[in-house]
Amino acid sequence: MTNPGKESDKRLLNLPVVAGNGLLHRRAFLRGGTALAGAMTGYSLVQSASAQRLVDDPWSLEPGNPVPEYGTRSRFEKDVVRTLTNPKGEPRNQHARTPHHLLNGTLTPNGLHFVISHAGDPDIDPEKHRLAIHGLVKQPLVFTLETLARYPMVSRAAFIECGGNSAPLFSKEPIQANVQALHGLVSCAEWTGVLLSTLLEETGVDSKAKWLVAEGADAPHLSRSVPVTKALDDAMIALYQNGERLMPGNGYPMRLLLPGWEGNMNIKWLRRIQLTESPGMTYYESKIYAPIVPGGKAYQFYFLQEVKSFITHPSPGLAMKGPGFYEISGIAYSGNGSIAKVMVSADGGKTWSQAALQEPVLSKSFTRFRLPWRWDGSPAILQSRAWDEAGYAQPTRAEFVAVRGETSRVPAVTAFPNEHYNAISSWAIESTGEVKHVYA
Amino acid sequence: MTNPGKESDKRLLNLPVVAGNGLLHRRAFLRGGTALAGAMTGYSLVQSASAQRLVDDPWSLEPGNPVPEYGTRSRFEKDVVRTLTNPKGEPRNQHARTPHHLLNGTLTPNGLHFVISHAGDPDIDPEKHRLAIHGLVKQPLVFTLETLARYPMVSRAAFIECGGNSAPLFSKEPIQANVQALHGLVSCAEWTGVLLSTLLEETGVDSKAKWLVAEGADAPHLSRSVPVTKALDDAMIALYQNGERLMPGNGYPMRLLLPGWEGNMNIKWLRRIQLTESPGMTYYESKIYAPIVPGGKAYQFYFLQEVKSFITHPSPGLAMKGPGFYEISGIAYSGNGSIAKVMVSADGGKTWSQAALQEPVLSKSFTRFRLPWRWDGSPAILQSRAWDEAGYAQPTRAEFVAVRGETSRVPAVTAFPNEHYNAISSWAIESTGEVKHVYA
Repeated sequence: MTNPGKESDKRLLNLPVVAGNGLLHRRAFLRGGTALAGAMTGYSLVQSASAQRLVDDPWSLEPGNPVPEYGTRSRFEKDVVRTLTNPKGEPRNQHARTPHHLLNGTLTPNGLHFVISHAGDPDIDPEKHRLAIHGLVKQPLVFTLETLARYPMVSRAAFIECGGNSAPLFSKEPIQANVQALHGLVSCAEWTGVLLSTLLEETGVDSKAKWLVAEGADAPHLSRSVPVTKALDDAMIALYQNGERLMPGNGYPMRLLLPGWEGNMNIKWLRRIQLTESPGMTYYESKIYAPIVPGGKAYQFYFLQEVKSFITHPSPGLAMKGPGFYEISGIAYSGNGSIAKVMVSADGGKTWSQAALQEPVLSKSFTRFRLPWRWDGSPAILQSRAWDEAGYAQPTRAEFVAVRGETSRVPAVTAFPNEHYNAISSWAIESTGEVKHVYA
Repeated sequence: MTNPGKESDKRLLNLPVVAGNGLLHRRAFLRGGTALAGAMTGYSLVQSASAQRLVDDPWSLEPGNPVPEYGTRSRFEKDVVRTLTNPKGEPRNQHARTPHHLLNGTLTPNGLHFVISHAGDPDIDPEKHRLAIHGLVKQPLVFTLETLARYPMVSRAAFIECGGNSAPLFSKEPIQANVQALHGLVSCAEWTGVLLSTLLEETGVDSKAKWLVAEGADAPHLSRSVPVTKALDDAMIALYQNGERLMPGNGYPMRLLLPGWEGNMNIKWLRRIQLTESPGMTYYESKIYAPIVPGGKAYQFYFLQEVKSFITHPSPGLAMKGPGFYEISGIAYSGNGSIAKVMVSADGGKTWSQAALQEPVLSKSFTRFRLPWRWDGSPAILQSRAWDEAGYAQPTRAEFVAVRGETSRVPAVTAFPNEHYNAISSWAIESTGEVKHVYA
């Protein structure tokens, strides 16, 4: 596809390759770097403007739609949706997965934030909803939304990830599915609310209190136990999501936010917090979210969502349109804090190149990484590997399953290991441009 | 309202007041600071939990709503909307203002981002839309959305503000309206797209090119001239807004983003960029956005949106519910870069206290500021004043109108000064708790 006789292609060929299979330096395209007329996509994709007359499309010839009170997306975006496991709301849990392959940036829009609801999304009247803090406190208190509004607030970006995200990758054979199906149970938003520590200053905390049990107002009254140390660290009663009130599926009108910890613990529709000496050993922590390891033992608790990354562009389902330049882009995050580094490989892990991290790199939030790539049209295997500021590195799949096990098929019941998968994902690019999920 | 006999109120009274009328130190409530049982709102607002039994509300007793493919807000949020100047879409421009008094955090949700459309929102088919870059370039090129997707992208938060935002404050008498009506033509989002400089590397730039004229695909083909220096600095072809594709009212499928510059220049529905030697002197820059000053002269161009801040909580229309603790919170931003400092006064500018700035403080983006306040129930006048990293300070209203003039009523036509108002706003708190717009 390159033509050494063309000036632009000569420059293209002179670009510094820093790792196998065409990975370029992360700063190759910074302003002031190599000038690259026609190099990014080649003139076969970018048309010369002189070759065609600028025409007025129909929408330029008539008034558009009235501006609404609350904006909605273009009708051409109707297929950018969450995938649902239970669209009719039958009496079991419902999963809605984020389409990361169709998004970009570091935030998940509110309409597309992942949701798991165990009995649908309760239709809560915010005027009537109450949050009680009781148990081992000096003064039990009940808060309305109106009283919470008078407390000092904080805003922070934070990812929330289901402990079961990426569970299909426990399968012995790589399941052919897109990044939404494989990794769609994680999202990131800016949350604003009142630190739980502020409210615990109000109630006072009995010195015997080591845990709290947080409970939601959904029909199952989903509840989880949280160490008081986390409550006093960075836990928040979140009231706003990306600037507006929480979405119904994300806990409207208030949820517990435990940055970096298992999604299910970030209790939605939060209605009470009871301070206790010991964990409650509730259904969801003792049965559902107690990951089993080979040999049949289980973790009693596995709070932390560990360092992880995956490539969103290209990814399975997004076919490549022929050789040339592409941007490899993806998401990295860690419950331990900030992402320190992301390395990318185009040859299945033999050689690696450091990706650029989109600033600001924020703690316990999505960090978008990017790396330019010149695909020569031959088979390639793309991988990303992240490190966090605490020094943890994302494991290879072989390292991971040696400790945590794997299953013969998609795990359907909790008797199989199916939680806290954070190993490296691999996308194989075939010479046709098709992208497949592989283990490498 | 305070009761010195109560232990909690004794602590309350011991809090350090750092400026007149009850402003407290911005770190007064940081964890590890003064313990404050009952101090924030008083037990009159926060109920003792032991005084009432925790009951199951109706929504806790039945399955909730099915989780949808694309989440929508709670029906209880239906009044949180943009205000429209032309809801039926009559053949003139349409303004939709952001309800800042009902939001929190640093981002504007996509449904509530302000919009001004001069002929409605065109219904653009993204597959057919093209961006042409031509004129004084070495190789004119036409880009599809698909080809743009292969270029290196960047993400950044940026506010966009209409040059006419806050125009009601030019009035000689303070107009009684809320913060949405007064300051609702500014919003902030995370934008992701391709730097214009990257595309200009592709086309090459003729050394004679000093300007570009950017044109939209809306029916008026709205166009503005931009110096090439800005194009090569931080201009972006924005494709994503808070993670998803742009909203129709914000330029779907692509807009020009000129961080910190007049909203109207951030051409929506961008269809071409022509590089030129001189500015185009288009209708919108020569007639509409050329601010007139006393004496009848006008600025030829006024690109920069200068340092500004306003308090969103409390603000007109959000009545105070009685004396006690409140958080004063607002938004600051500057087209020059980052916000360096925000000072808050509760006595109409006689004394000031430094507000806390929500981190990360990002260049040309909303910075949320916050300060705790103990309102004693007597009249007060709240003001905020921002400084940016370039050293500019928000002017007082008196300083501002001495240079820029004022009008006898709401400016309705461009013969009155009505643009780039960035002086201090003042909210008077009456002893009834009502909040009014005043000049102070």
